[in-house]
Amino acid sequence: MSHYRELKQECYEANLLLPKFGLVDLTFGNVSVLDREQAVFGIKPSGVDYAKLTPEDIVVVDLEGKQVEGKLRPSSDTATHRRLFLAFSDIASVVHSHSRNAVSFAQAGRAIPCLGTTHADYFYGEVPVTRPMTTAEIEGSYEWETGNVIVERFKGLDPLEMPGVLVHGHGPFAWGPSGAKAVENAFALEIVAEMALNALQINPQAEPLAQCLIDKHFLRKHGAGAYYGQKG
Amino acid sequence: MSHYRELKQECYEANLLLPKFGLVDLTFGNVSVLDREQAVFGIKPSGVDYAKLTPEDIVVVDLEGKQVEGKLRPSSDTATHRRLFLAFSDIASVVHSHSRNAVSFAQAGRAIPCLGTTHADYFYGEVPVTRPMTTAEIEGSYEWETGNVIVERFKGLDPLEMPGVLVHGHGPFAWGPSGAKAVENAFALEIVAEMALNALQINPQAEPLAQCLIDKHFLRKHGAGAYYGQKG
Amino acid sequence: MSHYRELKQECYEANLLLPKFGLVDLTFGNVSVLDREQAVFGIKPSGVDYAKLTPEDIVVVDLEGKQVEGKLRPSSDTATHRRLFLAFSDIASVVHSHSRNAVSFAQAGRAIPCLGTTHADYFYGEVPVTRPMTTAEIEGSYEWETGNVIVERFKGLDPLEMPGVLVHGHGPFAWGPSGAKAVENAFALEIVAEMALNALQINPQAEPLAQCLIDKHFLRKHGAGAYYGQKG
Amino acid sequence: MSHYRELKQECYEANLLLPKFGLVDLTFGNVSVLDREQAVFGIKPSGVDYAKLTPEDIVVVDLEGKQVEGKLRPSSDTATHRRLFLAFSDIASVVHSHSRNAVSFAQAGRAIPCLGTTHADYFYGEVPVTRPMTTAEIEGSYEWETGNVIVERFKGLDPLEMPGVLVHGHGPFAWGPSGAKAVENAFALEIVAEMALNALQINPQAEPLAQCLIDKHFLRKHGAGAYYGQKG
Repeated sequence: MSHYRELKQECYEANLLLPKFGLVDLTFGNVSVLDREQAVFGIKPSGVDYAKLTPEDIVVVDLEGKQVEGKLRPSSDTATHRRLFLAFSDIASVVHSHSRNAVSFAQAGRAIPCLGTTHADYFYGEVPVTRPMTTAEIEGSYEWETGNVIVERFKGLDPLEMPGVLVHGHGPFAWGPSGAKAVENAFALEIVAEMALNALQINPQAEPLAQCLIDKHFLRKHGAGAYYGQKG
Repeated sequence: MSHYRELKQECYEANLLLPKFGLVDLTFGNVSVLDREQAVFGIKPSGVDYAKLTPEDIVVVDLEGKQVEGKLRPSSDTATHRRLFLAFSDIASVVHSHSRNAVSFAQAGRAIPCLGTTHADYFYGEVPVTRPMTTAEIEGSYEWETGNVIVERFKGLDPLEMPGVLVHGHGPFAWGPSGAKAVENAFALEIVAEMALNALQINPQAEPLAQCLIDKHFLRKHGAGAYYGQKG
Repeated sequence: MSHYRELKQECYEANLLLPKFGLVDLTFGNVSVLDREQAVFGIKPSGVDYAKLTPEDIVVVDLEGKQVEGKLRPSSDTATHRRLFLAFSDIASVVHSHSRNAVSFAQAGRAIPCLGTTHADYFYGEVPVTRPMTTAEIEGSYEWETGNVIVERFKGLDPLEMPGVLVHGHGPFAWGPSGAKAVENAFALEIVAEMALNALQINPQAEPLAQCLIDKHFLRKHGAGAYYGQKG
Repeated sequence: MSHYRELKQECYEANLLLPKFGLVDLTFGNVSVLDREQAVFGIKPSGVDYAKLTPEDIVVVDLEGKQVEGKLRPSSDTATHRRLFLAFSDIASVVHSHSRNAVSFAQAGRAIPCLGTTHADYFYGEVPVTRPMTTAEIEGSYEWETGNVIVERFKGLDPLEMPGVLVHGHGPFAWGPSGAKAVENAFALEIVAEMALNALQINPQAEPLAQCLIDKHFLRKHGAGAYYGQKG
């Protein structure tokens, strides 16, 4: 029997949250879940329909990039996930979606400004966008280099305070301490993208929130002083 | 047995209208319902999934802010609700949502102009937006102060004629004489926000309705001369 | 037994198409169906929830405006419907909705330009918008006068070639030779409003279709030379 | 028994994907599927409701335009499909929809720029728009000429690398090697139209992807070097 049954189950369930939250069309998108002790992660197989996905289909890959379980090919974005797991030591799940409003910001090459408290509840400041990738990066190990431009953009940023990013001309990646939480962050990213897009239509000069209000909302939900939700 | 069974039931049912009307995502949003005689209100517990909410989960808080029934923490926005119940003597329910188009106006820092009769059927003029909160307010009793900036903005306004507001950079609050009616007002606020956003895209110089047309529509549905709907 | 059983049934069914097509929120909107021989029309009662509507609830009103059957009050917009039935001798059903994109154009005070063949399949040219109503009209017999400004706007227009209109600052009315067809026209109006809004965002200088293309599409579906669909 | 049973079944199933993917309203839209050996194609009958469509309703037409099976009239757009099958020798299915965002670009008279990798996964560069049709073309064999302006626009383009087009002032056509794949392309076209529309709202100067990134994504999914999905 598989050593990775629980990991695959969590990864399977997190992948199914993508269509549930309306974050994917067709076979786009994928979620990975990491077992940092065993240094392996489960990830969606490439191009498989969500309606037909089973826990057994989840592919297990180690942090060196070697496939250790599963008959199917892993997601073509596997190297990006792996790069993020190696760079961001406190995350346990990565989500890539093509959710429409977040993609729109990525295609516009614009960060999502922090215009409201919904945003600040999840993202501690503007959601950054990477620089465009170079020809060498695109023609080289493209998916690994996609992870690299994210990591480069996060110099000075804490991935737990900013659990998402837009890859320039491509789309969003989000992450978190579990599969379910990473997908929730991906969903929040889509919502705040929609609201920011609309707010900028209403008022192109809309101002980002004051820092103290960002602090208030982010810290109301995160860290030692959090008081949102029920005690753990 | 609880003294507040009916109150909790009404509050529970009103909270379930939020996802039914598409006004909330995730665990965002909350409805409170007041029993003004007993000087207590029921409110959604903080961070609880709507799909798992039960009438027993509703937290009962008195108008001094003391929790008088319920095992769960009340919504983190409880003090805002309480402030509104104290200031607006004719309302019996408050709704806070993160509905997307209303939030977009709040993030844009713009009132929703009264561009059409759908708006005037529910809101007697433009839906106001509060001023940004000060650092002292944000770092102080934030949720109570959120209520205060709403109350400040309503000097000279009648909360029954204007059953909603946008908190700057945050989102909408709405209210009414019952839980169901307050949620209906929150839903109407979202609809008129969407229509105003689109109308301003089509014609940035779109003019507010003439006052006599606002009068006509608002008074067709409200007050002694109302003739919309069936006799009570 | 009612003389109007079939009329009420058709009217009931047509009203239920409004929520089915997503054209109404809450209790907004209403459909009437005319029996021109008997000179009476059925119409939705005012403010009744679509989910609770029954065929028996349909109110029957004659062309003089007298209620001839039904215990409930007819729609507050009844006089507008009546005005249109009197003026437009070839129509048998009127629909009023608050569908969001059509309302947005009405609130913007702009006609919907005929930018594409989808539009020309249903509306033979731009969908007109009425002039704003005067104070005297608003404070007088408002709903009757609403019909009057529509009729005024249709001088020189054929209501069968242009089965819809936007009332300035209010919303769309549509009509047709049957309840089902009138609702289909209301739905087409909403779709073409959405597409026109988006097309104008992409290209504010988007040009209306050439007249010969409008002719081609409208006449492909209407009149003696029609060849769309199956033979009757 | 019909010689075309399988063809009609595939065509029927592909037509049902249109409402499933939200690509059609009312009776708009149609899919054809070609059997190139027998030189016939199945196509949706004109104006038939998708909910009532059966495999037996599919009309079979030969590449000369002669109806060879079926009691119903074929789609009024049949000649456009036929023109495309004759010109594009590697396609086996054509889809015409009135999907809202793609139509919006067609009505704006604008190609859909390749702003992101979602686009490049399906379309190898900007999705072209035809020139407006002349009066002679519109008043002549309109549907055949619609095919002709598409074919004219595709001089120098490979229909397999660009499996869709916008007909100016009208809407999208898409195609592919099978009914299911053609509808998938039509759906992708709608998605990329929505994302492009939004991206241009956020940043009107948004730049198309670098050619090497278009190459990377398109070729990751298509051709000999493809590595997306599972081995065939």
